[in-house]
Amino acid sequence: MSLNDLINHTSEWLKGSGPNSHIVMSSRVRLARNLEGIPFPNRANKKESQNVLKSVKEAILSIDSLKDALFLELEQVDSVDKQFLIERHLMSHEHALKPNNKALVVSNDEVVSIMINEEDHLRIQVMRSGFDLDESWRIIDNLDDELAKSLNFAFLSEWGYLTACPTNTGTALRGSVMLHLPALVMTKQINKILAAIAKLSFTTRGLYGEGTQASGNFFQISNQVSLGHSETEIFENLKGLIRQVIEQEEQARQALILQSREIVEDRVWRAYGTLRSSYIISSEETTELLSMVRLGSDLGIVKDIDRTFINELFIITQPAHLQKREGNKLSSSERDYKRASLIRSKLGGK
Amino acid sequence: MSLNDLINHTSEWLKGSGPNSHIVMSSRVRLARNLEGIPFPNRANKKESQNVLKSVKEAILSIDSLKDALFLELEQVDSVDKQFLIERHLMSHEHALKPNNKALVVSNDEVVSIMINEEDHLRIQVMRSGFDLDESWRIIDNLDDELAKSLNFAFLSEWGYLTACPTNTGTALRGSVMLHLPALVMTKQINKILAAIAKLSFTTRGLYGEGTQASGNFFQISNQVSLGHSETEIFENLKGLIRQVIEQEEQARQALILQSREIVEDRVWRAYGTLRSSYIISSEETTELLSMVRLGSDLGIVKDIDRTFINELFIITQPAHLQKREGNKLSSSERDYKRASLIRSKLGGK
Repeated sequence: MSLNDLINHTSEWLKGSGPNSHIVMSSRVRLARNLEGIPFPNRANKKESQNVLKSVKEAILSIDSLKDALFLELEQVDSVDKQFLIERHLMSHEHALKPNNKALVVSNDEVVSIMINEEDHLRIQVMRSGFDLDESWRIIDNLDDELAKSLNFAFLSEWGYLTACPTNTGTALRGSVMLHLPALVMTKQINKILAAIAKLSFTTRGLYGEGTQASGNFFQISNQVSLGHSETEIFENLKGLIRQVIEQEEQARQALILQSREIVEDRVWRAYGTLRSSYIISSEETTELLSMVRLGSDLGIVKDIDRTFINELFIITQPAHLQKREGNKLSSSERDYKRASLIRSKLGGK
Repeated sequence: MSLNDLINHTSEWLKGSGPNSHIVMSSRVRLARNLEGIPFPNRANKKESQNVLKSVKEAILSIDSLKDALFLELEQVDSVDKQFLIERHLMSHEHALKPNNKALVVSNDEVVSIMINEEDHLRIQVMRSGFDLDESWRIIDNLDDELAKSLNFAFLSEWGYLTACPTNTGTALRGSVMLHLPALVMTKQINKILAAIAKLSFTTRGLYGEGTQASGNFFQISNQVSLGHSETEIFENLKGLIRQVIEQEEQARQALILQSREIVEDRVWRAYGTLRSSYIISSEETTELLSMVRLGSDLGIVKDIDRTFINELFIITQPAHLQKREGNKLSSSERDYKRASLIRSKLGGK
């Protein structure tokens, strides 16, 4: 597989399938691992980092399920392609910033991605559609076992896995769930819920991870600390919380339909109409409008387009995706024009 | 003809025909006349006002072209119907406020309307589509001559026609032209032009006359004083000014198309898309969006709907028109819903 093959491919996490996929966009599990006896990436010298890269690459590609995976040394990847990988949630902004001795591995279905020499020597991610932390955990746990056969991970029985940042030490596990909560936003209950989540030692982030604002009514909820908690504890707490948020969103959607059906229909159809009509549109506005169309589809208001199709529109309208599709770099205003044109053609507009 | 027949009728001034109708919505000429020896309406007692009403009615209905005209005593007209007549520009707000001994006469084609006992005993109006002050003047001048055969108008050779407000004394003539100036608004030249107009002793008003804000990029320009000027002077000055404004708007449209075609197309199609999609819409938003669609039609961007159709939408979406169409009173939120539904059905939306 090559990087360019991804453009014609729907990431597993965008398929709009899986449990509770009317509210849960995707579930993600991440493990941090470091090689014993080698400084963490921010302290390692060039030679040490190159050695990490070499041995981790060998270990990964020797695993049966990853032998055909996409392997990218980031120094060879241009800026649009790096942005493209970030938009697909396959790697972090931080990983793209300083590409020296860094690499990214992506499985063919985009379920597994591994960053090498990011904050830790390995950042392993499994991402699936819907509310499916259990299956994501099963996959990543197997993968961790496979890797441990050939790599010697830094581990202390007292502390657990050692990581560059102490908040990750222990299980080095982070579970995140991306939720679409338009009804909680429209009914203005979201701030109360976000405040409660923060008190419970969970973190809420926007669509594009750490430091990003919530856009399109998407909220990523994840555990904040992993030190002193078992994997089971982390997952059960996170799953319990997510179940409650899902229930609140469901109630808010029902209340909206019962009490403000016309207002919801108006917002949904205006969003759809604007997407089908505009000739210039930013990615921010696109995200907000698609969020309303997704809600409309989930509520049965918009009948002729399905969730997978809408989810794909969120991604293919992002700046780097647009440029990959066009095959060349585009200025911001060129993108706004091409984006509108792409959306119109996808939605059967003028 | 009855008042209810008007609802299925397109007013002459909305036809979108006549000279320069891509920029000029309509031209209007108004004459104020008072009967000699009777106090102006604000000073007349009940008996005097009733006598004015009676003799003016007889004089009007004896004119051949007005013998089948709609004659309405305003005390018999309910509030929705009065609003309906205002929305059609057939009478003023002021005329509706205190209906005692007031009447309105409307010719079958809605070109001629005469208010009896408004500020003056007679306010005669002729309104036509496009930039057509000359023909409007010809019609009103004939009508004035006909009326003068049976009515004795208050006139002093030194002062001209006497009127309740001294600013109207003299010719008692007001010419107004309703212009659609979206390009001058979009290119932010409009304020400069309005300031120049004000310096030249002309008045600019909004779509619904005195005291109304400009909405939908419509501006009504009229002469401010009539005392000390001949009819010819008033018309030539007004026509000269309007010709200049038309030219400026034409230049602004050309500049927009050459320099910002994508931005104009975006605004036009978004407006069209929102009108076709919304489920709740105010009359203010409707007017603004229709203004953009009208511009789109005039620039050849929107090809499948013509100007008459758009002009009619401006009127039939007004509050009283909606209620007349529904056959009963509607609250503001009911109207916003019915308005959206009507527009969708007219524009072939969902």
